[in-house]
Order: sequence, then structure tokens, then C-alpha cells
Amino acid sequence: MSSGLDQIRDGGKRALAHALSRIEAEPDAARTIQLLDAAYAAARAHTVGLTGPPGVGKSTLTGALIDHWRTTGRTVGVIAVDPSSKLTGGALLGDRTRLRTDPADRGVFVRSMAARDRLGGLADLTISALVLMRAVFDLVLVETVGVGQSETDVTSAVDTVVLCIQPGAGDALQFMKAGIVEIPDIVAVTKTDLGATAARAQADLAAALDRREHAPGDWAVAALGVSSLKGEGVAALADLIDRHGAHLASMLAARRHGQAEQWLAQFVRERWGREGLKRAGALTLGAGESPFARLVALGLE
Amino acid sequence: MSSGLDQIRDGGKRALAHALSRIEAEPDAARTIQLLDAAYAAARAHTVGLTGPPGVGKSTLTGALIDHWRTTGRTVGVIAVDPSSKLTGGALLGDRTRLRTDPADRGVFVRSMAARDRLGGLADLTISALVLMRAVFDLVLVETVGVGQSETDVTSAVDTVVLCIQPGAGDALQFMKAGIVEIPDIVAVTKTDLGATAARAQADLAAALDRREHAPGDWAVAALGVSSLKGEGVAALADLIDRHGAHLASMLAARRHGQAEQWLAQFVRERWGREGLKRAGALTLGAGESPFARLVALGLE
Repeated sequence: MSSGLDQIRDGGKRALAHALSRIEAEPDAARTIQLLDAAYAAARAHTVGLTGPPGVGKSTLTGALIDHWRTTGRTVGVIAVDPSSKLTGGALLGDRTRLRTDPADRGVFVRSMAARDRLGGLADLTISALVLMRAVFDLVLVETVGVGQSETDVTSAVDTVVLCIQPGAGDALQFMKAGIVEIPDIVAVTKTDLGATAARAQADLAAALDRREHAPGDWAVAALGVSSLKGEGVAALADLIDRHGAHLASMLAARRHGQAEQWLAQFVRERWGREGLKRAGALTLGAGESPFARLVALGLE
Repeated sequence: MSSGLDQIRDGGKRALAHALSRIEAEPDAARTIQLLDAAYAAARAHTVGLTGPPGVGKSTLTGALIDHWRTTGRTVGVIAVDPSSKLTGGALLGDRTRLRTDPADRGVFVRSMAARDRLGGLADLTISALVLMRAVFDLVLVETVGVGQSETDVTSAVDTVVLCIQPGAGDALQFMKAGIVEIPDIVAVTKTDLGATAARAQADLAAALDRREHAPGDWAVAALGVSSLKGEGVAALADLIDRHGAHLASMLAARRHGQAEQWLAQFVRERWGREGLKRAGALTLGAGESPFARLVALGLE
């Protein structure tokens, strides 16, 4: 295949890393588009989003899921999305390298990507990486940090969304009240090794979820507890993820088609936005000069 | 003044609400730009961002701060930014109307705004509302929901950022570890009425903050506990906000100038992005059609 997809599949992690770097360096090059087109048509992975607040234990859970999936012979690609700070130009949430994987294992691949400069969704380079990795691995896991916007972002990119929450003073119910659990397909209460608090959080959440109405045949959002530390609940979570994938089956094509149309709109906005900045040149203001009048002066033509 | 700013100041809440609606309806109209230019030049408020995860008690704290400020004779404008759901097209976090204020009190005004379709910052309508309200009130408080992107967003818009966190199993230290507290100027540990947990959270955080290096003359991020329920700590928080404002004094003009240049760049991106979507027309994909090839076909010229 002239797209280069076969070479990437055959070339292992180094070839994939190289391809991803090339996509970042030349997002509009003909060979990039050719590769992404081929990858888009060759989607095979079940894609999973893992999201939740900082400190909830997402990286540890990702590691535990990877171990589980590798044990069962499935290959895994991971995209860790880092909400970059506009202040420092660097990572907001610090050390994203906590996730350690066996470098010799060709069946697992981890890539960190910045969420910076996204326009109402995951950055287009994240989408490109997802599409490429979707054609290479059995599972692709996208880990995003945050509470609020990031759930809706990841929802527009993956098949199954897992929200991680930690046990604590009424956290689970707070999330319910806040409407956050409208978004995920699965809620994982982490750190069940903390004991009674976690058990209560899970019970609260399960009870609240049970009260929600859903049409027959609709997926019922399930809450389950996991302890990455003790390895408890990880297999059950992986099983639930599989079951959601199976549930999607007939709807998957339509869901992905809808997502692709969202991506296209986002790509168009993003590229026009960048082009506008390029044409505007240096956007410095004089002392006291209003940005509003200046915007009018810039115009669109 | 022909800009209409004086009429808004004289016309009370109805006039302000009307002006904000007109800005939303006609963001590019000459009279909108004229009004915003006048408001930009007439900034008088100290602007404060209040952010933190859902359920932490931001709305309640906002209410308590409003009461405190009103008691001391200061006028307050509030912008509650709602992270809208792309799924429902509506509010993600549900009931934003929990904040009840006295309709007869002309010294306090609350506006809810959607964060939807923002491009790496607060939506431009939020910025416009902030600029207008900054010329009308003594204090403008911007309440954003979330953990992650929303801190950096609000930082690019206000003078003083307050991060609210709730006491819980190591939450405070998790935030420290996650680097989130690089962003705020003040950290408020809410719900100190919950007792020992909150006290420990505050002590942990204070200790962690004390260990951070900062140059002489730099603002030292302070943590304090508040109980909106009991009204404890609210006056201390208001005082700390004032002290941060005083600390900024000589730097305020430079900080706001930098923010205005960020806004301008964001406005340019946003408008070009919208224009691109308009020109592209319907962005529907055929079955199996790749969004990448389609994007190339659309071109930019």
C-alpha cells in the first residue's frame, strides 16, 4: 500500500513514532493526508477515553489496563492528552511520564500530546494520532485530564468514555448533581483500597445511576470500583469496556461517521483561524489601544 | 458620551442586560465596538476569577462574597461561565441559577454565559461582557467550572484568580502535585464546616505553598479556609482579594495590556474560524469518506 500504513504496522514503535512526528511536522502534506485517509479506512481498534480530575489515578489505571490487555494478547496504543499552560507554554499538569511501559513490548505504545490551541475539541493532531493508531492496535486509549470541557471533548473522538472519580466527601453524588455523568458510558470509582469511603462512593453512585431512566436497549451507565494498587476491578472494567464495544456494534459506524463530520468542521475552523492569525501579522496593541477597534480595522479580507 | 456607556451606568440592571444582549446579537456592529472601546478605556473594577471542580461550592461562595461586598458598599457584577455540552447543545453542568440575588439591589448583577465554541480561552462574548461590566461595577467576578483548562482560561481574563478546592482524601496535595496551583493567586479550601478534614487540607496546602520558592516582592499564593454556610473566612478571603489587587497596582496596566493582546489574537482566530465554516457550507461526509481528504478538497483559498 503506497500510503505507508503497512510499513508503519510492520516497522513497530519506531516507525509509528516517526510517522506521528511527520504528521505533526507536515500536517497538510500530501503523504500525510494519504496516510490518514488509509488509516481512516482501516480502523480496527476499539477506542476508549479515560477522563477525570487530576490525582484520581488515571495514569495508574491506564497502566493496569495495559497490563490486563497485554496479558490477554491485545495490543494497545495510548494517547495522553496534556492540557498545556498558556502561561508557561509547557505542561500544566506536570509529569506525564508516570506511565511506564516495557520498551521491548511492541504491543504497547504511548504518545503524549498537547491539548493547547484546540478549538472546541481535541487538537487536530490528537485526532490524527487517534486515527493512525486506530488502524494499528486492538485498543486505543485516550487519557484526558480535567473535569468539565474534557469529557465532551473526548466524547467526540472515542467509542467508549470512562470517567474516573475518587472516593471522598460526597464526590460521587456531587458529580451526579453536576450532570457530569451524562457524558460517560462507564464510571470507575478509583482507589477502592481506601476502604469504606470508596465502597460508599460506589454504592451512592450505583444507586443514583439506577434511578436514571433509559430506554430499553439503551446502554445503562455502570459504576464499578477499581484498585489499580491491588489490581482489583481492573479485569471487570476491561470486561465492561468490551461489553460497551459489543453494545455499540450496529451503531458504531454511525457514531464514527458523526464524529468524523465534527472533526471536519473543527479542522476547517482551526485552519482558518490559523490562517487569520498569519495574515494579521503581529498583534501588538499601543498603550490603551482597545482590541475591539483594532479587530474591526483588521477586517476579514 | 455617544458610546452609550453613561446610559448603561445610569439605566441600572435592565439597561446593562439589554446592552449585553445587543452585544451578543450584534457583536460586530459599529455601536457595539464603540461601546466596548469606551468601556475598555473606562475600566474601573477589580476583576476576580473563581474556579474549581463542580460541587466545590463556588456558587455558594460567590453568594457569600457578594453579600460581604454589598455590606461594605461595593457594587458587584458576576459572570457565570457555563461549559456547554456539545451533545445537548445546552448546559453541561445543569442548574446555574443556584445563585440568588436580590432583584431590587441595583449594586449586584449576574449574567450566565456559555463557554461553548471558545478557541483557547473564554468565548469572546464573555470577554466583551467582562469589559463592559468592568466599566460599571467596583468588582467583577467571573465564575468558571472545571479543573484543567478553565484555570488558564480565566487567568487570561482577570486580575486575581481564586481556586476553590474541597477538603477530601488528600485532594489539596493532589492539586499541588498536579501543578494546578501554579495558576491561582489565592486558594480557598471550601466547606471548613466539615471539620478536621478541611483543617488538614488547608494545613497541608499551606505547608506545600510555603515550600515553594518565590522572589522577594512576588505574590505568595495563600491558602485559606472558608465556610460559606457559617460565613467563616469570607471576609478574610475578600480582604486577601483586595490585597492581591493592591499588590498588582503597578503591574496591573501591563497585565491587562498583555491580556488584551491575547484577546485580540483569540478574536482574530475565532472570527476567521467562523468565516471558514460559513464558506465551507454543509460539511457532510459520504459513507466511509475520510475527513482528511475532504479538508484538502476544501482548501483555504
